Amino acid sequence: MTTSADTASGKLVRTQGVTAPLGFRAAGIAAGIKASGKLDLALVFSEGPEYSAAGVFTGNKVKAAPVLWSQQVLKSGRLRAVILNSGGANACTGPGGFQDTHRTAEELAKALSNWGTETGAGEVAVCSTGLIGDRLPMDKLIPAVTEIVHEMGGGLSGGLDAAHAIMTTDTVPKEAAFHHRDKWNVGGMAKGAGMLAPSLATMLVVLTTDAVATPEQLDSALRKATRLTFDRLDVDGSCSTNDTVLLLANGASEVTPSQEDLDAAVLAVCDDLAEQLMADAEGVTKRVHVTVAGAASEDEALVAARAIARDSLVKTALFGSDPNWGRVLAAVGIAPITLDPDRITVSFNGNPVCVDSVGVPGAREVDLSGADIAVRVELNVGSGEATVRTTDLSHGYVEENSAYSS
Amino acid sequence: MTTSADTASGKLVRTQGVTAPLGFRAAGIAAGIKASGKLDLALVFSEGPEYSAAGVFTGNKVKAAPVLWSQQVLKSGRLRAVILNSGGANACTGPGGFQDTHRTAEELAKALSNWGTETGAGEVAVCSTGLIGDRLPMDKLIPAVTEIVHEMGGGLSGGLDAAHAIMTTDTVPKEAAFHHRDKWNVGGMAKGAGMLAPSLATMLVVLTTDAVATPEQLDSALRKATRLTFDRLDVDGSCSTNDTVLLLANGASEVTPSQEDLDAAVLAVCDDLAEQLMADAEGVTKRVHVTVAGAASEDEALVAARAIARDSLVKTALFGSDPNWGRVLAAVGIAPITLDPDRITVSFNGNPVCVDSVGVPGAREVDLSGADIAVRVELNVGSGEATVRTTDLSHGYVEENSAYSS
Repeated sequence: MTTSADTASGKLVRTQGVTAPLGFRAAGIAAGIKASGKLDLALVFSEGPEYSAAGVFTGNKVKAAPVLWSQQVLKSGRLRAVILNSGGANACTGPGGFQDTHRTAEELAKALSNWGTETGAGEVAVCSTGLIGDRLPMDKLIPAVTEIVHEMGGGLSGGLDAAHAIMTTDTVPKEAAFHHRDKWNVGGMAKGAGMLAPSLATMLVVLTTDAVATPEQLDSALRKATRLTFDRLDVDGSCSTNDTVLLLANGASEVTPSQEDLDAAVLAVCDDLAEQLMADAEGVTKRVHVTVAGAASEDEALVAARAIARDSLVKTALFGSDPNWGRVLAAVGIAPITLDPDRITVSFNGNPVCVDSVGVPGAREVDLSGADIAVRVELNVGSGEATVRTTDLSHGYVEENSAYSS
Repeated sequence: MTTSADTASGKLVRTQGVTAPLGFRAAGIAAGIKASGKLDLALVFSEGPEYSAAGVFTGNKVKAAPVLWSQQVLKSGRLRAVILNSGGANACTGPGGFQDTHRTAEELAKALSNWGTETGAGEVAVCSTGLIGDRLPMDKLIPAVTEIVHEMGGGLSGGLDAAHAIMTTDTVPKEAAFHHRDKWNVGGMAKGAGMLAPSLATMLVVLTTDAVATPEQLDSALRKATRLTFDRLDVDGSCSTNDTVLLLANGASEVTPSQEDLDAAVLAVCDDLAEQLMADAEGVTKRVHVTVAGAASEDEALVAARAIARDSLVKTALFGSDPNWGRVLAAVGIAPITLDPDRITVSFNGNPVCVDSVGVPGAREVDLSGADIAVRVELNVGSGEATVRTTDLSHGYVEENSAYSS
């Protein structure tokens, strides 16, 4: 997926995030959850007048407390605020951990109410990211929840601070915004530099829009977009306990876009954020797009692309800039899909290296030394096509993930 | 699986291999396929009087020419010889590559016939291992096929030379033999230090026995054994185009064991070879046994154990000797099995680190600095249990697999 929104319909920028749309405020502060003293608490707040919302959550059966909470809250299709912390996932923390999440939402609702906006805990989603298994330091978190309400800015800096505060092993904050020519906007921020997988993964994304839209319209736009973007970002096949993508709409622009326009704008922002997540994945030295075409169906193309994108031998070869197409064929051959083992074609960066499952002369000399690698596989059995974004498997990946409990 | 044969029924040794049973000869020579000049051609020859055989092959849809050939030959349930080369997989080499395999079998049959044992190409299995996609240097291979027939020794050194000649990135040859107290024997050799996966993977194994057994009995014993051993060895989830496990019986002992005894002896040798493969896997610094118990069925236990064994985040944590049990729970949570996310227990080397999905105090201090790590997960939903052997994901793995085309 390298889809970007039709430039005729608007403009995509990376310099703005959740506060790009009208009527959203955000903040990021250091609550002291991270020992490093870095920003670790973020808030996204909708001024209304509407509070429609939708969410997509991890497919992992082991769900963190904030995921269980936010799923429950989202049933109303309504959100006024999202509070997010890094420095601790609050996953596998038992009933006590769930109480911590509940209390965080209640404290935020109370702080917002005192600040002048009557808010219930049921209008607050909670997201957490960090190490699994430890309780959050509530003695630090609770006072910070009140503090952050007073820090909320309506300008772009609040959004950027929030994008900073959700970072874990990310090296850069990730923001994107789409300004529609009809004067409504979609903004977003994301974190997640590893454990990115098909069903999302330690990935937190908050999207905002000032369009007028029902929860159903948001849900539809969000599911279509995540299916083509975050669900097709596969760094290591792992899938976190905490993945959450939220979309809030406040109607502040007073514009009601068509479902088609809403879909396109949400997709554009998600696609750009997914590209940024890939580029900043743990230990990445190569940004890789794996496309499988000519499959029996789009689903089968996706299964095959994922099998290649997850194969450790393919990924280490790419780290070594090695056009080892045999490993691509071996990876495709394991995928549970329809294929003709004698009719597979592979190209790297547009150079055919294998035609009808046999190597092309010069294939081993293809230059893959650049940071971007496009792997294209043609199965010649149908017309299904799908692209998965992935990265190489590098020493950096091993280093980041073998250091003590990250 | 750490099953070893009942010592009351016999003895397992690692100092003998395919020539441990009566009536088998073997050799290993340098044919010049490997640029390094190391041993690269192996032969295992059965003197009879019987020539029963069975085989298990890769589940990869992309199958190397020697796999296609040997599968065809095995339909007769009869083998007189196996010729194996390292230095080239002869996979994805098209019809020309298949002709090369066919010609290798014919040349060996001719050489054996000239040597005094009337042999047909249809009695010769062929195995290859090495880089995918290149044709074999037939100008070197063909003369070597005649030469190796003259090098065949009946002693143990021939078996050891053969075990050396099939090595690729293996650092040590792998042999095992079981001597049954009733005076019949099973011997074996194996290679494969990466791409070891559920359906086998760039793993070549030749097993021999001097027992009297039909092809059906051999097939039954071999399938039971591989299901519990090589199929549960999962280094990186990859699965090669060339995996082959062969079992030849010549009846030279004149003993006809019960199916049960045959099963146990073949299992004992396979289990020991699988342990050796794990210990010599590419870049291994930890030997890991992942056991899942209390699953709804043995199949579900296996699916869950495999999900953990393949998880890059679990494997990098183990490389770092980090008792990061949260990653184990996250990996189990992705597995498509029945589970109660609140009732999972995890232990490392016998130390409980997580009970009912919540961390145990002191869990992060469990010492995993040794080379052997046992991960045990109790799902508490049934009585299914399975163990998968795996390794950590280390810098060495990345290094070995990112160097130019290996």
